[in-house]
Order: sequence, then structure tokens, then C-alpha cells
Amino acid sequence: MILYDVKIAPSPRRVRIFLAEKNLDVEVIQVNTAEGEHLKEDFLKLNPWATVPVLKLDDGTCISEAIACCRYLEENYPNPPLMGVNPSEKAIISMWEHRMEWDGFLPVAEFLRNTVERFKNRGLTGTLNFNQIPALAERGQKRIAHFHDFLDKRLAESKFVATDKYSIADITAQVSIDFAQRAGVSIPEDKKNILRWHSNVNSRESAKS
Amino acid sequence: MILYDVKIAPSPRRVRIFLAEKNLDVEVIQVNTAEGEHLKEDFLKLNPWATVPVLKLDDGTCISEAIACCRYLEENYPNPPLMGVNPSEKAIISMWEHRMEWDGFLPVAEFLRNTVERFKNRGLTGTLNFNQIPALAERGQKRIAHFHDFLDKRLAESKFVATDKYSIADITAQVSIDFAQRAGVSIPEDKKNILRWHSNVNSRESAKS
Repeated sequence: MILYDVKIAPSPRRVRIFLAEKNLDVEVIQVNTAEGEHLKEDFLKLNPWATVPVLKLDDGTCISEAIACCRYLEENYPNPPLMGVNPSEKAIISMWEHRMEWDGFLPVAEFLRNTVERFKNRGLTGTLNFNQIPALAERGQKRIAHFHDFLDKRLAESKFVATDKYSIADITAQVSIDFAQRAGVSIPEDKKNILRWHSNVNSRESAKS
Repeated sequence: MILYDVKIAPSPRRVRIFLAEKNLDVEVIQVNTAEGEHLKEDFLKLNPWATVPVLKLDDGTCISEAIACCRYLEENYPNPPLMGVNPSEKAIISMWEHRMEWDGFLPVAEFLRNTVERFKNRGLTGTLNFNQIPALAERGQKRIAHFHDFLDKRLAESKFVATDKYSIADITAQVSIDFAQRAGVSIPEDKKNILRWHSNVNSRESAKS
């Protein structure tokens, strides 16, 4: 199994944390996105959508999309479970994971990709070029603030994001929070529950991934 | 089990088709989103994100997010399988499903919500109000054209979207295509593979859902 990775990108970090939690050690190949390697023919054969991560299985099958990579790992290496162990838990974790992506991950991408100089004509990932849209950067910022409000309330009533155990929903939230921080948006000081949870998940060995 | 539904909305249709494929008959309650019922306290108790669908389980647990509702149904009623039967198939279907959402479903929402009068200050679903962004409507349109190009190539080499069997990835693609159609963007006449596949999936009993 090979993980095609970009060390500083948030999507592959979700898979790296997942691998670390499962105690799995796989070969990692860095893709040089700064030099456009993800848009070249060799990489597009692995993933026509030009995104990382890609998990290349031993039979040559390529899995892209972070959530799909995690699904493969969970089904093959069920312990420790990170996506639930019965139908209702699996659904609850899936609900929260999807929500963390929509409410956390996407708004940060919306803000960052429409603001930063190096993404000038790369408003979205993928093979198409899109100009930055200033109104979208503004919308992203408002959504991040809302994400902080909502997550703080959730973590006042629950130890972890989806249930009382660490799961893929925490990973997506954690990566979104750190991604926002790198984009210049820190956890507001009054969000005590996020701060507590963040210090908790950050103390896990996997957070270094 | 109760499905909170909006008959004309695309997200709950994914779950309705899923239920029909599983041959499951559940109680359905229509939420009057036109009158803002989804933003009122009673509904927010079921789903604080103010979106449909919501699947209310017999023990009172509420599952929102279409993909999470489908996960619950798949785990409880595995036949016929719509999300794969082994780790690699599950991952491949998850990859394609997630991609159909990003490349198909989201661009149509982006186009529609930023164009149509009735969504004037409802650029996104949820509890927050956002003004329409004209540049985003334009971006959505370009993305839909790209989605048609890409999907047509995929369906030239594969009977269904993810594998040689009908799956949740087909459901998301099918709902996205019909959603686009309702937003005024039809399948281009030269996309023969999409047209063949669409007529195939549309002839299934579940398509009426």
C-alpha cells in the first residue's frame, strides 16, 4: 500500500492521522503540487481528479477522496474502530464527519483559496482553473466563525465530536481547526470547550501526523 | 422509523431512492421549507443544521445528512448492497459517491442557489443567511459542464458509475443530473453514455421516488 501525500495539505492529513491511529505504517510518496506534479499525466493516471490523498493498493487499485481511503482502512483494519461498530453508531459518526467537512473543512478552503496569492487562479482543487472570488472569502470567514460557535456548544455536551469516543469526526474537525489556524484564523479564546477538546486530541501521538 | 422529507428537494431524494431499492416502506413526514418550518424550534430539535432529510429511528435518535441516513440503512438492511461488499469495493463506491457529490451535486446547488429568486438570501442551506454571489452561479455552470464531460467518459468504460453494479454513486449522480435538469441544465445531446445510463437508471422503479 502506498499513500500519495502532500505534507502541508489538510486532506491527506486526515488519512495520515487515521493510519497512525490504526498503527499502520505504509510507504509514503510526496507529490510536488507546488511544481504542478498533480496535474501531470503520471499522477492523473492514479487520480484523474488531480487531488491528494491517493491510496494505491497492492493490486494497483487507486483510492482517492480522504473519506474513501479511511473507509478502506476501517474495513480492512477494524481496530481500533474509528467509524463506529453498529448501524446507529456508524450513522451518527458519518453524520458528524460529513458535517465537520461541510461546516469546518470547506469554509476554511473557501476562505483560504479565495484569499492567498498562491491560489490566484486555483479557487478550487482539480483540473480546472477558477479565479478567486472575494465574496467567497468573506463568506468562508463567516462560516468559520459559525463553525466555532456550533462546535463549542457540541463539545460542551459531548467529550468527542460524534460520541464519547474519538472517531473520524474528530479527525476531520481537528484537521479543519488546524487548517484554519494556518490560514490565520485561531480558535477564539472564549471557546473553552473547543480549546479543551483540541488540547486533548492534540496530545494523541497521531496528531503529529 | 420516520423520514422527514421535502418532496422537491434533491438531498432527501437520495434517501427515498435508497429506501425504494431496499424495498423499505417507512413513514414519511413532509417539512414545509417554503414556510420556513425547517428553521423553527420543533424541527431544529430533530436537526440543528436545519436540513432535510432526517431519519428518526424508533429509539428517537435522529440521523441527518443523506449519506449518513444511507449508511444506517445499508448496515441494517444489507440487501441488495448499494455501498459495496468488501473493503476495496466499499472504498471505490465511497470514492465515486463523494466525487459525484462534489462534481455534480454541489455545482448544481452552487448554480441554482445563486441564481433563483426564491433563494435570494439563502445562498447556502442551514441556519445562516447568505446573499447570492453571481460569480458563483457562473462557476457552478462551468462545473456542471465539466461534470457532464467527465461522467460521459466514465460511463463509456463502465456500465454504472462506480462498478458494474448500481450503487449509491449512481443515486447521487442520478439525483444531481435530474436536479440540474430542473435548474434548466439538461444533459447535452452529445453525451451518449450519460443518456444511455440515465435511461437505464430512470427505468428502475426507485427512480419514481
